[in-house]
Amino acid sequence: MRILVALGGNAILQHTEKGTADEQFRNVRHACVQLAGIIKDGHQIVVTHGNGPQVGDILLRDEMAKEVLPPMPLDVCGAESQGMIGYMIQRSLREELKLWHMDTRVATILSETVVDPGDEAFTKPSKPIGPFYTASEASELKETKGWTMVNDSDRGYRRVVPSPRPLSIVETPTISALLQSGVVVIASGGGGIPVAEGVDGAIRGVEAVIDKDLAAAVLASSVKADMLLMLTDVDNVFLDYAKPTARPLERLTRADCIKYLEQGQFAEGSMKPKVEAAVSFIDAGGRVASISSLAGARQAVVLKAGTSISA
Amino acid sequence: MRILVALGGNAILQHTEKGTADEQFRNVRHACVQLAGIIKDGHQIVVTHGNGPQVGDILLRDEMAKEVLPPMPLDVCGAESQGMIGYMIQRSLREELKLWHMDTRVATILSETVVDPGDEAFTKPSKPIGPFYTASEASELKETKGWTMVNDSDRGYRRVVPSPRPLSIVETPTISALLQSGVVVIASGGGGIPVAEGVDGAIRGVEAVIDKDLAAAVLASSVKADMLLMLTDVDNVFLDYAKPTARPLERLTRADCIKYLEQGQFAEGSMKPKVEAAVSFIDAGGRVASISSLAGARQAVVLKAGTSISA
Repeated sequence: MRILVALGGNAILQHTEKGTADEQFRNVRHACVQLAGIIKDGHQIVVTHGNGPQVGDILLRDEMAKEVLPPMPLDVCGAESQGMIGYMIQRSLREELKLWHMDTRVATILSETVVDPGDEAFTKPSKPIGPFYTASEASELKETKGWTMVNDSDRGYRRVVPSPRPLSIVETPTISALLQSGVVVIASGGGGIPVAEGVDGAIRGVEAVIDKDLAAAVLASSVKADMLLMLTDVDNVFLDYAKPTARPLERLTRADCIKYLEQGQFAEGSMKPKVEAAVSFIDAGGRVASISSLAGARQAVVLKAGTSISA
Repeated sequence: MRILVALGGNAILQHTEKGTADEQFRNVRHACVQLAGIIKDGHQIVVTHGNGPQVGDILLRDEMAKEVLPPMPLDVCGAESQGMIGYMIQRSLREELKLWHMDTRVATILSETVVDPGDEAFTKPSKPIGPFYTASEASELKETKGWTMVNDSDRGYRRVVPSPRPLSIVETPTISALLQSGVVVIASGGGGIPVAEGVDGAIRGVEAVIDKDLAAAVLASSVKADMLLMLTDVDNVFLDYAKPTARPLERLTRADCIKYLEQGQFAEGSMKPKVEAAVSFIDAGGRVASISSLAGARQAVVLKAGTSISA
């Protein structure tokens, strides 16, 4: 099978960690054991990953240096994070494959994701990003940069940016060609660098973030993957998650997903986009999506772990 | 012809500029006019680039945020810069090609460059990198991090790191396959992410920087390029550069290069590595190297501008 594996952000860096390169390499290497196992089982994989903690750190560094260096826009920060994380994954996966006596090639393709400049997300920015600010800093940023700022509970103010729907991955033909020749491709990291076509027909970067699971679904169907495997920190999709009535789900149909999404069963920015990504992959002709923990990845491929979703 | 084009760091960001994304995109787009011209002339190109100013900015941001976020090692910073600059070049080149009515595919491959851990450069770090420090900061960094610090004229102390010789580019087979299928590949940015094999056989990142022209020569011969074209801010290689007796050179043999290198004609970190890269490309079986200004690039390809070097 050709499998698109989407690694959650916390497969790379956990919230309790400081963010050192050593921590990230250690976590990534741990994830690569699962990836190597899937490859050993005879599958071809495309890897994508989140970038939340890394882009957060890049934005915080930009903020702290802003008196001497101009901060970079979000598309450029996303590109930086693809470089950083792509390197960590490619080097670690090659090393892990070596231990398994496989010399499969691994390459990272910098990826841009096209969004619709008319996407309604641009009129209602909703995704919090970057550092926390005081009320007065927040109102200054609103004034000077036109940022939308929200009061994020007791921790202060944060910038919110649009999260438009991904339409296509610019590098799809290149990624497909590499897969065809047996390369494990790392692509569309952090949902891809967000770009949109202007009225003049030119493609430009946009100040937005793209959900990595929705982008993974687009990439998975574009490269005709048989399975979209989303790895996260729980073993299954749950109904009534974190409630006394919580119960794990093993098999879901598209109709089940729609029903539970309408009931508001899944958390925004967490399980909800994963289930939506699964539906969108199925709707585009995909065979099966699976949501599983990292540890269950190999078993999830054969539908013996995780929650599988099909038509 | 297959041509490896190496863009100088100042084709992307000039020292007089602030370093905004807009400035960098403008400069890169300007360079892409030349690249598109070379492609229009029927050649296949591989693009590499410097990353000095960008890595300098990444290191400075790391330094300014060090109280709250752990600084990244040099290999990770290099990977970040490849993401940032690769994105700028690939998006700009696609836009420029569109104006020339060409739909050539463009892709950036994150590249690692292998160096010898026994390279003598590791015993004498020589390449200044990152921000300036006071004398007391410098001695603290020497103590706590084991950095080698040098007094850089009147501006303060700077870290110096090894600049080992590049041996090979890990991603060569992938880059070659993409070139074969007609993709313009951006690779080995900033000389590539420096990695070396440890005594345990594992490949790890190293605290070093790699000269981008020497790495370009390695990549050029690995992908069997016909020409290595190094673009810089002067029209030609000069003898007695910046002296009243200065004279530009149009044709050089390998023997001429060796003679002038021995005479110390070329500046360290500037023209010297370019001429050395040319020699190393010729020695590896390359046909012709050319050193030219960005504006002269298309003419340099047909040896009507710049300084050409052959056996």
